Amino acid sequence: MAKEITSRSEDYSKWYIDIVKKAGLADNSAVRGCMVIKPYGFAIWEKMQAQLDKMFKETGHQNAYFPLFIPKSFLSKEAEHVEGFAKECAVVTHHRLMNDPNGTGVVVDPSAKLEEELIIRPTSETIIWNTYREWISSYRDLPLLINQWANVVRWEMRTRLFLRTAEFLWQEGHTAHATKEEAIAESEQMLHVYADFVENFMAVPVVKGRKTASERFAGALDTYTIEALMQDGKALQSGTSHFLGQNFAKAFDVTFLGKDNKQHLVWATSWGVSTRLMGALVMAHSDDEGLVLPPKLAPIQVVIVPIPKPNEEIDKVANAIVEQLKAKGISVKYDQDTTKRPGFKFAEWELKGVPVRLGIGKRDLAKGVVEVARRDTKEKSSQPLDGIADYVENLLNDIQENIYSKALTYRDEHITPVDTWEEFKEVLDTKGGFVSAHWDGTEETEKKIKEETKATSRCIPLDGKEEAGTCVYSGKPSKGRILFARAY
Amino acid sequence: MAKEITSRSEDYSKWYIDIVKKAGLADNSAVRGCMVIKPYGFAIWEKMQAQLDKMFKETGHQNAYFPLFIPKSFLSKEAEHVEGFAKECAVVTHHRLMNDPNGTGVVVDPSAKLEEELIIRPTSETIIWNTYREWISSYRDLPLLINQWANVVRWEMRTRLFLRTAEFLWQEGHTAHATKEEAIAESEQMLHVYADFVENFMAVPVVKGRKTASERFAGALDTYTIEALMQDGKALQSGTSHFLGQNFAKAFDVTFLGKDNKQHLVWATSWGVSTRLMGALVMAHSDDEGLVLPPKLAPIQVVIVPIPKPNEEIDKVANAIVEQLKAKGISVKYDQDTTKRPGFKFAEWELKGVPVRLGIGKRDLAKGVVEVARRDTKEKSSQPLDGIADYVENLLNDIQENIYSKALTYRDEHITPVDTWEEFKEVLDTKGGFVSAHWDGTEETEKKIKEETKATSRCIPLDGKEEAGTCVYSGKPSKGRILFARAY
Repeated sequence: MAKEITSRSEDYSKWYIDIVKKAGLADNSAVRGCMVIKPYGFAIWEKMQAQLDKMFKETGHQNAYFPLFIPKSFLSKEAEHVEGFAKECAVVTHHRLMNDPNGTGVVVDPSAKLEEELIIRPTSETIIWNTYREWISSYRDLPLLINQWANVVRWEMRTRLFLRTAEFLWQEGHTAHATKEEAIAESEQMLHVYADFVENFMAVPVVKGRKTASERFAGALDTYTIEALMQDGKALQSGTSHFLGQNFAKAFDVTFLGKDNKQHLVWATSWGVSTRLMGALVMAHSDDEGLVLPPKLAPIQVVIVPIPKPNEEIDKVANAIVEQLKAKGISVKYDQDTTKRPGFKFAEWELKGVPVRLGIGKRDLAKGVVEVARRDTKEKSSQPLDGIADYVENLLNDIQENIYSKALTYRDEHITPVDTWEEFKEVLDTKGGFVSAHWDGTEETEKKIKEETKATSRCIPLDGKEEAGTCVYSGKPSKGRILFARAY
Repeated sequence: MAKEITSRSEDYSKWYIDIVKKAGLADNSAVRGCMVIKPYGFAIWEKMQAQLDKMFKETGHQNAYFPLFIPKSFLSKEAEHVEGFAKECAVVTHHRLMNDPNGTGVVVDPSAKLEEELIIRPTSETIIWNTYREWISSYRDLPLLINQWANVVRWEMRTRLFLRTAEFLWQEGHTAHATKEEAIAESEQMLHVYADFVENFMAVPVVKGRKTASERFAGALDTYTIEALMQDGKALQSGTSHFLGQNFAKAFDVTFLGKDNKQHLVWATSWGVSTRLMGALVMAHSDDEGLVLPPKLAPIQVVIVPIPKPNEEIDKVANAIVEQLKAKGISVKYDQDTTKRPGFKFAEWELKGVPVRLGIGKRDLAKGVVEVARRDTKEKSSQPLDGIADYVENLLNDIQENIYSKALTYRDEHITPVDTWEEFKEVLDTKGGFVSAHWDGTEETEKKIKEETKATSRCIPLDGKEEAGTCVYSGKPSKGRILFARAY
């Protein structure tokens, strides 16, 4: 093994951090709670960004950029919003340093205190809706469909690489509409875009649903969510889309002149996914040897390893394969490092999750074959050199599908309907995953369930059916089942 | 005219701001000195980013992401660096807000004071070199060729959209090398990459040179720069690349084990361009009707306007042209808005700088022609429908070249060699542009020249020749001419 990784069975959390660090995805920084995203990790994030950006543009959105800073007073304008974010704000109070009069180094210059403190954006609804007031005056200005790629800061006390960091990267869509129906349709559309991306590119199956009132975004009337399941049976909220009603239009006085020649408040949505998705990607697929990447997001899809080391004959074959794969748009690396042995390289590329490895050795070449190893199942086979590029292309598709269906099988086996409180607790403790249970609709019950089991309501599935029943906790009447789980 | 723009002759500064705002590039925000980059402006920036990113990757660089925050003590570790940036730092001192005990709204929670203040990065050398200490241990880890796309904050007192804002977007390359020669070669290479981009994509000619000691980046041993000339005769520094020597390696204790089995300090470079380039793009080419965009960076390269409005016949022809142009990778918009007249649309698309406009009217169609208008020269002509896509493709290339050569002619006419102090001042006041003059090599003289004329030394051109002479200001001996100009 190139680098030792804790096994999942031994310590799942440590396994996760080992993979993130040792595969070169990210590392802690000198700043509490902030991470450094390393080149290999960033290359994966760039592939995610490129695909999401394409999907946003195909659905009519444009990118823009709004300030990092939010005046403190803006946050207070929407009551629930400030309640939700005030406790985790990084606050800028001064704009200058000066030499320390009592020693070396620099100190804050007390004369450079800001009149009004600035908050580093934890999310941008307030600064954006303050701007929209200038941009929107007539129904002709609507819908306004804007997205921003940005860094945001939420001062979390307990952080974990990618899953919860003080600073993270994300995109935030902020749209403005003339009607309620249109805004709801937008927030639902973006949930489907997220689900499409997470399932078809990240190969992670999701449950689409709505959050209960207590789990909504601060300031939203309705929050849609996609919930994924990790290999330890814990859920991970992977993307949310909010119908904000007219709350921000009211707070920032954003109205438009309708076709009816009257002034109306504007309807809003916002939606976001973040570098948290990197955590979901790692935890959904990887194994004790390292990262397992879906081919569609792998920065290197194929690696070619000369056995035991490069020579003229092997170089010639390898370079020809590189050309053929590149012509198909497949990213490939020929590992010509002569200082490492094949076994070491195999482990290294497995750790990095490269989907397909081709081994080229003298004996195989004499037979006109190469060794093909797939990362997901670890299967190896000999394949004829002739037509190898087509074979690899198909194999990459197979791997993408296989990773998804493996995760889907696991997920489907871990949605367990329960009808009693005993069962509820037992399933959580023994099997994990989502528990599908009747709930009386009250925040009080959710709270107690959380206190007693650490499980939270994940969502009311969009495809759930109305079904009269009895709350698994309170015994009161329920209108349908919702999903609970322990979650990241 | 759709929207009134101040003419250049009337007020060049106001003309610039009018174009930036009215063409929909950017606007001021509610936060002092911070701008909102609007969708059309951001689309241009995205095209710049995509091309630069490609060029960085082609020269072997990888992207990564480092924290927004820099611990205050890090800044102090490199003496010149802190001197250069301390006076314009946004400082985070607290991490929580609380309800105002004396009223409504929120206030900073005094109990949430940070132990050490955090600076919003004005540039990232310090946090990055602190990280490189962990990443570099052997010559095998070098060179380390990293770039980051990020927002940075420098608390400028006098701001102007794109040219000087408190927050701006940029890329910063930070590379680490085993030898001095390699680091110098890297900083020169990146200067050439920048010049290539600015000249061949932005169509703005530049002078490549080195900064004098007083104009160097804080912490650099040598700063390379590309200097462009705006239409008002003022220079604009458009990109810089720094040879940092071992200053940051010393400050952050970054050493590597060499092939000689000894520890050595690492050599460094950094280089950056920013949204300032958007300002250069606007000021280099635009005219009193609005923006003039080089085709390679125009979000919309061709607009088709139906005359006087869409109908079945015109739609059919327009859609066919759209398909043909798209097949060539040309971005095109068919303006089917029925609420505006052609004349209004013409002005609107001129304001937005779309390089080519096609007018399709009934009478022209009867003759089998369309009207082609080019934005740069405002020339119009009738062109046969047959083969129109090829014609437009060639025309876009012509426009790209014409915009560049126009700017080049202007620039070349505005590099004026002068040999006396009287001439120096007169050229600056009457003609503007770069003044090429002998200088005695002292900071004192630069300072006096600046005080008396507001002109600063722009660069020592890379292609300048050694030539003994007399300093235009002090009369002392000089080794060669350097360029001075009034600058943004």
